[in-house]
Amino acid sequence: PLYLCWALGSAAATAPNILLLLMDDMGWGDLGVFGQPSKETPNLDQMAAEGMLFLDFYTASPLCSPSRAALLTGRLPVRNGFYTTNGHARNAYTPQDIVGGIPDSELLLPELLKKAGYTNKIIGKWHLGHRPQFHPLRHGFDEWFGSPNCHFGPYDSRERPNIPVFRDWDMVGRYYEDFKIDLKTGEANLTQLYLQEALDFISKQQASQQPFFLYWAIDATHAPVYASKQFLGTSQRGLYGDAVREIDDSIGKILKHLQQLGISENTFVFFTSDNGAALISAPKQGGSNGPFLCGKQTTFEGGMREPAIAWWPGHIPAGGVSQQLGSVMDLFSTSLSLAGVQPPSDRQIDGIDLLPVMLQGKLIDRPIFYYRGNELMAVRAGLYKAHYWTWSNSWEEQSKGIDFCPGQSVAGVTTHTQEEHTYLPLLFHLGRDPGEKYPLSFASEEYQRAVEHISGLAQQHKASLVPGQPQLNVCDQAVMNWSPPGCEKLGKCLKAPESDPKKCSWPH
Amino acid sequence: PLYLCWALGSAAATAPNILLLLMDDMGWGDLGVFGQPSKETPNLDQMAAEGMLFLDFYTASPLCSPSRAALLTGRLPVRNGFYTTNGHARNAYTPQDIVGGIPDSELLLPELLKKAGYTNKIIGKWHLGHRPQFHPLRHGFDEWFGSPNCHFGPYDSRERPNIPVFRDWDMVGRYYEDFKIDLKTGEANLTQLYLQEALDFISKQQASQQPFFLYWAIDATHAPVYASKQFLGTSQRGLYGDAVREIDDSIGKILKHLQQLGISENTFVFFTSDNGAALISAPKQGGSNGPFLCGKQTTFEGGMREPAIAWWPGHIPAGGVSQQLGSVMDLFSTSLSLAGVQPPSDRQIDGIDLLPVMLQGKLIDRPIFYYRGNELMAVRAGLYKAHYWTWSNSWEEQSKGIDFCPGQSVAGVTTHTQEEHTYLPLLFHLGRDPGEKYPLSFASEEYQRAVEHISGLAQQHKASLVPGQPQLNVCDQAVMNWSPPGCEKLGKCLKAPESDPKKCSWPH
Repeated sequence: PLYLCWALGSAAATAPNILLLLMDDMGWGDLGVFGQPSKETPNLDQMAAEGMLFLDFYTASPLCSPSRAALLTGRLPVRNGFYTTNGHARNAYTPQDIVGGIPDSELLLPELLKKAGYTNKIIGKWHLGHRPQFHPLRHGFDEWFGSPNCHFGPYDSRERPNIPVFRDWDMVGRYYEDFKIDLKTGEANLTQLYLQEALDFISKQQASQQPFFLYWAIDATHAPVYASKQFLGTSQRGLYGDAVREIDDSIGKILKHLQQLGISENTFVFFTSDNGAALISAPKQGGSNGPFLCGKQTTFEGGMREPAIAWWPGHIPAGGVSQQLGSVMDLFSTSLSLAGVQPPSDRQIDGIDLLPVMLQGKLIDRPIFYYRGNELMAVRAGLYKAHYWTWSNSWEEQSKGIDFCPGQSVAGVTTHTQEEHTYLPLLFHLGRDPGEKYPLSFASEEYQRAVEHISGLAQQHKASLVPGQPQLNVCDQAVMNWSPPGCEKLGKCLKAPESDPKKCSWPH
Repeated sequence: PLYLCWALGSAAATAPNILLLLMDDMGWGDLGVFGQPSKETPNLDQMAAEGMLFLDFYTASPLCSPSRAALLTGRLPVRNGFYTTNGHARNAYTPQDIVGGIPDSELLLPELLKKAGYTNKIIGKWHLGHRPQFHPLRHGFDEWFGSPNCHFGPYDSRERPNIPVFRDWDMVGRYYEDFKIDLKTGEANLTQLYLQEALDFISKQQASQQPFFLYWAIDATHAPVYASKQFLGTSQRGLYGDAVREIDDSIGKILKHLQQLGISENTFVFFTSDNGAALISAPKQGGSNGPFLCGKQTTFEGGMREPAIAWWPGHIPAGGVSQQLGSVMDLFSTSLSLAGVQPPSDRQIDGIDLLPVMLQGKLIDRPIFYYRGNELMAVRAGLYKAHYWTWSNSWEEQSKGIDFCPGQSVAGVTTHTQEEHTYLPLLFHLGRDPGEKYPLSFASEEYQRAVEHISGLAQQHKASLVPGQPQLNVCDQAVMNWSPPGCEKLGKCLKAPESDPKKCSWPH
């Protein structure tokens, strides 16, 4: 590794722009550089060649909302409240009828960056709650173009309203009504809108000489998958691949824009995804987790290991490959470090600053905690991963065709009942067995040694954990996006039903 | 693609050296550039960056001997005799007690290259028969350092002799006796011997200004897997990874040697493997087939899709990626084209000349035929693959722990009885579904169209096929390597038992 100590110094001094490219349901195996068999991502592969590839980078939850809450707070969902206690080890998120969202007590990355003079923009999916108190502009962002929830639909406006699209404080239309998504052809030009929005914001910030934080949280690879007309039918991989190609093309344009504006050496860019590919939607509406086991919703590698690339020309050496165990929560800590802002000292932060890894080639010893809802399912330390609980999904759901591990079945591992292994964890060596197919023998010395170490880490973590108030327990039809701010101007207000709060049902 | 038409002309004029690097049981997913999660092959990844990567390159058989016979004859095993009729769709190879081998009627690549003035050397595993008439120096090679069979053992010299190692015509020792393989530690220095042998041969040829064909057929990644002391314990992947790292390091040294001698622009190098990773030996003794289904012995992608890299600086454009459907048999035709030698016109050649693909970026329309023993199991054309027969292995073997698809199970696809689908083939779209997990609906228009096309190709192929005399039907303990040529000088001759020829048993 090259030692570029001067870069670290200069970084802190100049407060570089920060650009986080967060994909939706994109899997580790979806990029050429990670072995996708059609290799259709030349721009992302080039980004990796010019930057640093992270092979062992994780999300903090196998589901969208908690993963995003973790990224923006630097804290595990079980701390920041993005989990449920309605059922054991159930993933929860923020559908339209969710009552909760990001608590005011949480400090988000843009709130902290604002103190260092950053202008903060979110483009795309917010997903930390859609009720007024959870609006991203109340939580540190200065600008927003995008939507609060997933682009599911179309809805009939009676049982359920269509999801609004916001510009800053107000809605500017709704999906399927004003922002078209053709479910038959898969055509939608949203990625182009999000691309243009990013290019314009970057240009504006460059002109005003203000540092920016841009959180580009696009969602074309989340079912229902979509692509613009010019990309439809261009991929060997079908519609999902068309969406990936459009994203790849867009990221190429964004990086080129930074270079043309002469600010690439002053802009830290990080690419990753919110959780593993949604194999339940594959092959037409879901991606690939490469050689890993299962996908989204699970705590196997396919559910939580993410593609990840850091890019910062002149600072991060080109062509680097890191086996640092990383997390989306590290993007919080690393961004603060880049901005020269101290992380909050009044709460537990789970992220770590990755700058020594990226700039000096260091490796930092740290575990990875795999949560599903309120349960610590597994822990990784070094190359060993211990499962304390295993579950793919219930037999009941499996029988309905809901399959988080299609074509894969490992006896005693991809279980359809929740299996506890606390007293005899299932142990895998992810170097020899990245696919989690061969649990180590309980009798082996290797098992004893590794489990002793990992279980120590797990116990320490659990003993000191103060869970946050769970935010994803209560649902209510009345809180859906009936009349978001700005609906009056557009004549898009809908009448909400009577409030009838209930426990949300989280089946997975 | 760059069009380098001048290169084609100069190639034909100068008769470049040809270096084929053939791996043993290495899988598509074993190289960093193909997505191995630990990325431990910097030299092969660099070779790909400087050359052309083939994403859709196939072997002609999911087992070693037939694959190698196909490579050296340019013909399918069912034509060149490297198959059995002892059972339906059974893979057969050349263990010590095999009576057959490569027929004299077959024309091997080195025999043909000799006419163009090439000096031909094989380093490593021959595997086309070990009885005197099958000796590689009787089939076009000028030099040999290696062995006729797999390095199984150690044997007791009574029931079974250890495998001899040859230098040219004579044996120079035996595995486990004179060439140590420590099964406990996995230590053996054979790859270093094979590396040195390659470097010396290349130097000698360079000094004598004679073009060479070097067939570097090493076997460190075939169980029992081995590595030299300096590589033991260096991989995250365990012993198998140690072997891969030693091979990667060795190939780096070979390419560097060509560059230092100033002959890299006059040496065509191709890297590939004989069949998919042997998942039955994974994780300690077997590799990875990435996202593909099953492994060695099967006609799923994991059994037959191979890592492949072409490297010829100054001729093949750097950083190319090709989706040409390629085959090990193309190495026969391509090598002849490089040497300016006409392929034999008195027999069917299945290989095609890939130079237009590598030098001019062309794509040649051609099908891939997936054979298992005497049966055409599947055919690929474009992105579609039709299975006419499916079989992983028998229930009987499965119950004994023999599993060619560990952790994978696709209903109706990875079948444990031989299932015929001739009248309604299972169809996969390998672009959307490289893992062969989602057969297309029989009722779809897409299915009808694709199957009509592929089945036409299959029928045409079968109708015109004249199978060769099967060479792998008869086994006899008396023909084992009891007294290979040269044994007298070494005092290594053993007494053969009485001849007792029997039908070989091929369970898979």
